[in-house]
Amino acid sequence: MFSAIDVIRAKRDGQRLTDEQIDWVVDAYTRGEVADEQMSALAMAVLLRGMTPEETARWTAAMVASGDTLALGGLSRPTVDKHSTGGVGDKITLPLTPLVAACGAAVPQLSGRGLGHTGGTLDKLESIPGWRARLTAEEIRDRLRDVGAVICAATEGLAPADRKLYALRDVTGTVESVPLIASSIMSKKIAEGVESLVLDVKCGSGAFMKTPDQARELATALVDIGAANGLRISALITDMSAPLGRAVGNALEVAESVEVLLGGGPPDVVELTVELAREMLRHAGISGVDPAEVLADGRAHEVWCRMITAQGGDPEAALPQAEHVDTITAPASGTLTGLDAHVVGLAAWRLGAGRARKEDTVDHAAGVLCLAKPGERVTEGQPLLELRTDRPETLPAVRESLEAAYEISGADVKSTPLILDKVTADR
Amino acid sequence: MFSAIDVIRAKRDGQRLTDEQIDWVVDAYTRGEVADEQMSALAMAVLLRGMTPEETARWTAAMVASGDTLALGGLSRPTVDKHSTGGVGDKITLPLTPLVAACGAAVPQLSGRGLGHTGGTLDKLESIPGWRARLTAEEIRDRLRDVGAVICAATEGLAPADRKLYALRDVTGTVESVPLIASSIMSKKIAEGVESLVLDVKCGSGAFMKTPDQARELATALVDIGAANGLRISALITDMSAPLGRAVGNALEVAESVEVLLGGGPPDVVELTVELAREMLRHAGISGVDPAEVLADGRAHEVWCRMITAQGGDPEAALPQAEHVDTITAPASGTLTGLDAHVVGLAAWRLGAGRARKEDTVDHAAGVLCLAKPGERVTEGQPLLELRTDRPETLPAVRESLEAAYEISGADVKSTPLILDKVTADR
Repeated sequence: MFSAIDVIRAKRDGQRLTDEQIDWVVDAYTRGEVADEQMSALAMAVLLRGMTPEETARWTAAMVASGDTLALGGLSRPTVDKHSTGGVGDKITLPLTPLVAACGAAVPQLSGRGLGHTGGTLDKLESIPGWRARLTAEEIRDRLRDVGAVICAATEGLAPADRKLYALRDVTGTVESVPLIASSIMSKKIAEGVESLVLDVKCGSGAFMKTPDQARELATALVDIGAANGLRISALITDMSAPLGRAVGNALEVAESVEVLLGGGPPDVVELTVELAREMLRHAGISGVDPAEVLADGRAHEVWCRMITAQGGDPEAALPQAEHVDTITAPASGTLTGLDAHVVGLAAWRLGAGRARKEDTVDHAAGVLCLAKPGERVTEGQPLLELRTDRPETLPAVRESLEAAYEISGADVKSTPLILDKVTADR
Repeated sequence: MFSAIDVIRAKRDGQRLTDEQIDWVVDAYTRGEVADEQMSALAMAVLLRGMTPEETARWTAAMVASGDTLALGGLSRPTVDKHSTGGVGDKITLPLTPLVAACGAAVPQLSGRGLGHTGGTLDKLESIPGWRARLTAEEIRDRLRDVGAVICAATEGLAPADRKLYALRDVTGTVESVPLIASSIMSKKIAEGVESLVLDVKCGSGAFMKTPDQARELATALVDIGAANGLRISALITDMSAPLGRAVGNALEVAESVEVLLGGGPPDVVELTVELAREMLRHAGISGVDPAEVLADGRAHEVWCRMITAQGGDPEAALPQAEHVDTITAPASGTLTGLDAHVVGLAAWRLGAGRARKEDTVDHAAGVLCLAKPGERVTEGQPLLELRTDRPETLPAVRESLEAAYEISGADVKSTPLILDKVTADR
């Protein structure tokens, strides 16, 4: 019938894979009939030869079919989710999930842990004493019914083909393929069983995609896969040249998210949270409710408290504090014209906020507070960055790396918009 | 220092690999530090991105360095070898090796077994009762000293990286890369330790390379690798659109080779044997001896007998005969204008001459005799092909397949030359 070599050769020679070839190779790989060395050769051929939107959509569907899907039918609310491609200080899931639930949707946020310089949502929430990430499919459904919002670890059975393929790509130089990145992201989201999805595709130094064109390419691939698999879907392309908000680090970001849920917080975090909420509500068919109001008047915070409590967390408990605090001050007066997200992300990671290997644990209290943000006026000697850590030995190197992170200019500069573009399914 | 992912990425992104990267990755793969799934991704990247002649030469040297080399120093004769890329009815190694030895060179022919429709030299010689293929390195040196000629299996320790990589490429759709094919062939030949090498690069339906341009590309890659690694080397590009000689099948080809060694045999086999011998003697610096004469006067046959005897074979023993003989006759009179090498090769294979899997054994007596060759006049009813097998159940399908193998034309056609081109190191 099918042979791995035939499928590899077809893609290697630039052919379009048939639906049957895709279904077979993904299934056979999951079952172990197609070997790792065959799939890695195929992944390299896909990386260099590409896949059409149709192939990519089918590949994604085959990965979804490799495992279970969360059955979310029978909820009285429309289901909608958000996915971000990841950035420095990106804690938007924390305020957004209870906000959209407070507006009437059911929001299952199945999230991951961080690796490298961008943090993971579960790592952030685990700085809340008592909070637990692991729920059963049954518990997820119960939380969506009771609270309308749940943030938890993805259950084991979702898209096992993706888990296996991602681990393989990670060691074979085949990560950087838009069709493979897009199908990896979307297979997990489609397996969640939501009706609508809004994507936040980050671009800039702190993101995987460095330029708006790259981000648009990925966003288009993601939206096409979702639409082909029956989702209501769109993507915002948002700036990640500077950290989002002021807080970078697990407990620091939880604290900032709570500020936002209490009607305060940094304007960029509020803006992005509200814009993503509007887009999610639009897809969910919920109108007549303004998320900005629901955020400002405490209704979103109320859902947050119920959501955290339902997973064993104490929303009133004090968050962990780092023992060592250090500040970097402005060497001159002027306008802060740049604050490199990547450098700040790496700094937080080195201070203990992130992990180098999957097995590592994170320091929940560690991180960086950006006391000034690009576009703001600073005066010489004013604190720009606050470093928090329980590993003081990391401070000298981190301080030195952060010297290159910011720019201060005598001239005023126009600030760049946070939301750069939007990609919809009906282009 | 080095990481597999960095090397894979560099090639994936079209960069030239450094000598150090190549040395490291080949060595680390041989030692098992670079995993199969990483090497197959790299092989696919090499296949799609290519390697420069310098990279390919270094890759080959690294494969040679992965194992032992046969130390052939201390022989009183110059050492020279021939390698053919394989074709249907290609038994040239059999008469050529003793011929060149009879002219004064030492010829170590480390050969392989057949897989698919082209036969292996060892399979052919094993139709001689008592002959054994496996010699130690010590025995190979002894035979070269005593007889000047040896045809045997490659010793285990030569280019283990190539053995491992070839098995991997075979199952990952990464066979068809000229740099990888060329480095695989040349690593084994360089590890043999000969001073000179002549290549017979086949082209046409019965060969791996179908067109003269493809054959020239492979020949150039092979010659460049050899020259870069200090060999005196050149390549003939020869026609493989029709079988070479009249015999296709193990014992049948041995019998035909003995005819040639006794001064007879088909003109094309004699021509190619003598031309390759001239080229080998030129590289070996042996002049004043005419191989055509040495073939005609029985001196080459004398070395053949000693060579076979030295490996336990009886050169006088009767060769195995098939029980079933069937003939295909000419359906019309005219000139035989084509006899498809690939179809004839497959027919011999199906009759039992070849193996489908490495574990299979071959029927030494099975095969096809081409009673007429392209360019010859035939009359209606005259036998064209004789099929020999111990598996009579294969005959109907083989007969049917051979209907498409030949063409008879009313008009005379110009015969194509056997030797199409020559590629030398000083182009």
